[in-house]
Amino acid sequence: MALGAMQDWPLRVMRLVDHAEREHGNREIVTAWSGGEVTRTDWRSVAHDARRMAQALEAAGINPGDRVATLAMNHSAHLTAWYGAIGMGGVLHTLNPRLFDDQLDFIVNHAEDRVLLYDRAFAELVDRMKPRWPMVERYICFDAPEEDEHSLSRWLAPHDGRYTWVEGDELDPCALCYTSGTTGNPKGVLYNHRSTMLHALAEVAPDSFNLSSRACVMPIVPMFHANAWGVPWAAPLTGCKLVLSADYRPAQLCDLYRDEKVTHSAGVPTVWLGMIEHIERTGSELECLKYVTIGGSAAPRAMICWFRERGIHVSHAWGMTETSPLGSLPGPPAGWDEMSDAEQIAYTCRQGRVPFGVEHRVVDDEGRELPRDGKQSGELQVRGPWVIRRYFKEAGDAVCADNWFNTGDVAALHPDGSMQITDRAKDVIKSGGEWISSIELENAAIGCPGVAEAAAIGVVHPKWDERPLLIVVRGPGSDVTGDDVYAHLSTRVARWWLPDAIEFVDSLPHTATGKLSKKTLRERFAGYRLPDAVEMVGRD
Amino acid sequence: MALGAMQDWPLRVMRLVDHAEREHGNREIVTAWSGGEVTRTDWRSVAHDARRMAQALEAAGINPGDRVATLAMNHSAHLTAWYGAIGMGGVLHTLNPRLFDDQLDFIVNHAEDRVLLYDRAFAELVDRMKPRWPMVERYICFDAPEEDEHSLSRWLAPHDGRYTWVEGDELDPCALCYTSGTTGNPKGVLYNHRSTMLHALAEVAPDSFNLSSRACVMPIVPMFHANAWGVPWAAPLTGCKLVLSADYRPAQLCDLYRDEKVTHSAGVPTVWLGMIEHIERTGSELECLKYVTIGGSAAPRAMICWFRERGIHVSHAWGMTETSPLGSLPGPPAGWDEMSDAEQIAYTCRQGRVPFGVEHRVVDDEGRELPRDGKQSGELQVRGPWVIRRYFKEAGDAVCADNWFNTGDVAALHPDGSMQITDRAKDVIKSGGEWISSIELENAAIGCPGVAEAAAIGVVHPKWDERPLLIVVRGPGSDVTGDDVYAHLSTRVARWWLPDAIEFVDSLPHTATGKLSKKTLRERFAGYRLPDAVEMVGRD
Repeated sequence: MALGAMQDWPLRVMRLVDHAEREHGNREIVTAWSGGEVTRTDWRSVAHDARRMAQALEAAGINPGDRVATLAMNHSAHLTAWYGAIGMGGVLHTLNPRLFDDQLDFIVNHAEDRVLLYDRAFAELVDRMKPRWPMVERYICFDAPEEDEHSLSRWLAPHDGRYTWVEGDELDPCALCYTSGTTGNPKGVLYNHRSTMLHALAEVAPDSFNLSSRACVMPIVPMFHANAWGVPWAAPLTGCKLVLSADYRPAQLCDLYRDEKVTHSAGVPTVWLGMIEHIERTGSELECLKYVTIGGSAAPRAMICWFRERGIHVSHAWGMTETSPLGSLPGPPAGWDEMSDAEQIAYTCRQGRVPFGVEHRVVDDEGRELPRDGKQSGELQVRGPWVIRRYFKEAGDAVCADNWFNTGDVAALHPDGSMQITDRAKDVIKSGGEWISSIELENAAIGCPGVAEAAAIGVVHPKWDERPLLIVVRGPGSDVTGDDVYAHLSTRVARWWLPDAIEFVDSLPHTATGKLSKKTLRERFAGYRLPDAVEMVGRD
Repeated sequence: MALGAMQDWPLRVMRLVDHAEREHGNREIVTAWSGGEVTRTDWRSVAHDARRMAQALEAAGINPGDRVATLAMNHSAHLTAWYGAIGMGGVLHTLNPRLFDDQLDFIVNHAEDRVLLYDRAFAELVDRMKPRWPMVERYICFDAPEEDEHSLSRWLAPHDGRYTWVEGDELDPCALCYTSGTTGNPKGVLYNHRSTMLHALAEVAPDSFNLSSRACVMPIVPMFHANAWGVPWAAPLTGCKLVLSADYRPAQLCDLYRDEKVTHSAGVPTVWLGMIEHIERTGSELECLKYVTIGGSAAPRAMICWFRERGIHVSHAWGMTETSPLGSLPGPPAGWDEMSDAEQIAYTCRQGRVPFGVEHRVVDDEGRELPRDGKQSGELQVRGPWVIRRYFKEAGDAVCADNWFNTGDVAALHPDGSMQITDRAKDVIKSGGEWISSIELENAAIGCPGVAEAAAIGVVHPKWDERPLLIVVRGPGSDVTGDDVYAHLSTRVARWWLPDAIEFVDSLPHTATGKLSKKTLRERFAGYRLPDAVEMVGRD
């Protein structure tokens, strides 16, 4: 015993649900199911059912440290399963149902999942995969009727909720999430109680998601996508109302914004694009929505302006599965209110700043740190207590000296501390020894009327190594032409960045997490023949 | 090594200043000195000078764990000394210059302070106490001219700031603060790095002080009073602007609110009373002020309304040195915007709710937990990772079973989780087996026009054990009478709560921390003879 002492307890995730049950017991958790049905529960019920689930897992012989997998969209039963699995000391493993069979095969076997809880919507996938998942001993279906042998309610029926959470060290693992990895096998990020709790405390701050007990938050990012960006941890911490939607049809989401008076929401640009298109077409309103966070990939300027014009505070975060995922937070800077509209938009187009707990630096090809001048781009490295050190079951650490983790993103740091992602390291177009940001090209193109989506990839060029090819999806009813797009781009990017060719397609490929799949595009356009240089000069 | 790992580092206070130096390096820290002079510095300079101070302390032979005392008001050099002392592994000990000599004698010797940094304003006090503080080896004066042998700048002159903070465990002590204790010797609360950091993370949340990098915060609570309620830790965490005033003359504070565009402020009711009186008299404005937190003792309803009428979000917190000090936070509840004005005021008159991390319960005389019905009052107990377990150098813990700390406050918990302090356990007036809240009587009396301040104490009564005596200070120019006060009270408190007598005095005694000193009043009115019961009945 020291000369004096403060109290202490381990930073364990279950304290969140204890707090919510005690202080915000009747705060609503709303689920909109895929069929459109809306159900309601609250923290008191979630806590009770999580204890019943913990009992059921123990009765099934699951031990602390064992992995309990979920293959489910966002809903309250999924939320309950999170806390039930972690409450009995298990490690929650959220599976992404959009992955390919081979990936799911690898991931479940690598994780050694012993129980798998799934949505009926994925029953076919589960049946197909069962022979390839020999280690899974028990399948439980969240929404099967009670007479079904796999029914969750049937499984929980014998249990009364008289249960005390398993205690332990705050460095014990609590959750596992695999990166969808564009190369090689998926890799598992093993979150622990402490990293999750520090991340949750940072997430609620005014410069982050700004969550209070008055907020009503709807994450439109799946719970299997880096823990729905931590919202299911932040909600019980603050007592905000939580709205979960099991699907992302814009009509259903818009109904929820209105009916549930959603004030805060967060999602990737692709989902927002669909929503904006729906709203523009139907004249829906976002009603009470005040705070929108965009992350996952860069938000186009036009999207940022769209929200601002509706009086919605829009902000831009950045992160990845390896950063829990909040690696930067919006944090409008000092002097925000005195900034002009243009300055505020320029700031918002960047990916925010570090919260306390995270550090950024950008390094050149030789690993030398670059100055924070807002000009020089380099590979972004991060570190901090909710950043990965070692992937699940890997023999070596994933970080270089001093814990710096290489994100694979290319970024510039500005003198005010804000960070600007300019590209993925593998997507940057290397032309004549200089870098062209594929993301900036795409964002500029999306601002062109009639363009719904755009992707820029580098294709081989005999003289410049690579030159940009822009692939465009037209908006509904649009007949925008390549010349229109060129005209639009020509005042927005450097002349040598202008794409050598523009192709129109019906749709672009996306990864399982909703991002543009540049890898698929590069494969599809491998061997693409650019128009010759004469034609380029002609265009100039 | 586990199967996978997130990064980690100890939650050490110095990470706050590292973060602020790196991410908010030129964010202003403004000091208004007692003489009226205003000086400016920033986190870059504070960090640099803190490193120089750490060097000076090491050069003076101070070791990690040694206590470094300050006897100073709020200013940037004091702030720098905090981080300098903690940065070299020392324990910062903030002394309250308003204490009696005997208390300061006890505290400094009990703490074994080796260095004492003081304001020139307290030079006489220091000179007087030096013979009684044999363990203090070195006295440094914050604001002495460089030619003075005790000058801080002279002491720091040889040091260049090339220094790396001492690392260590997050449970290492970092700060020491004694309670002014109304009985017995003062007791020391030894904060550690972890408790301080978790407290700081909770403090910035929207339901707490709501601090962002856009905020400009002026604590009008001394840095020796429970660490100025944690604001000097929360400021570098968020990058908000920090305004420190070395004195509390309302005119100086009002100038600062205006000139520095202060958006957030926090203080005890006594200080706000002086400010309100000044503003009413001079017609000053609070300008940019948006968020006011009142704590330390209960805020009268009239004060809460005064701020609300000016469009200022006013909130009510509760805490004590033993709770770091935030033991409850304002946290307006779900549905706040739909509440009527009267409902919002009623909620604000209570002392907020627990943030994640703190638990409350109220117990009766036998230690049985009382229901959260908003009616039954009992002794308030708290627990959590920033609540004391054991006082400095005490042999036993200060908590009862399951870490519950007895606050000495009497409170009721409401069904919505809000907490209402009804009295100090030792101030409650016990009349005929029932309790009369001295605080509620005082607050009701303060609402009477012409009453500037009021105190209610119990005096011995042959039949009822105790009956209330109300002691009133008239406002400037007021000729309010006892009958006026009775008339005002009669519609606001239960009839049996009406004081048996009212005395008018020129001023009321206050403790070193600005609270009403009921102890002094009880001594002064010991043996007071209440009017007989016939008179009471006649009044009815």
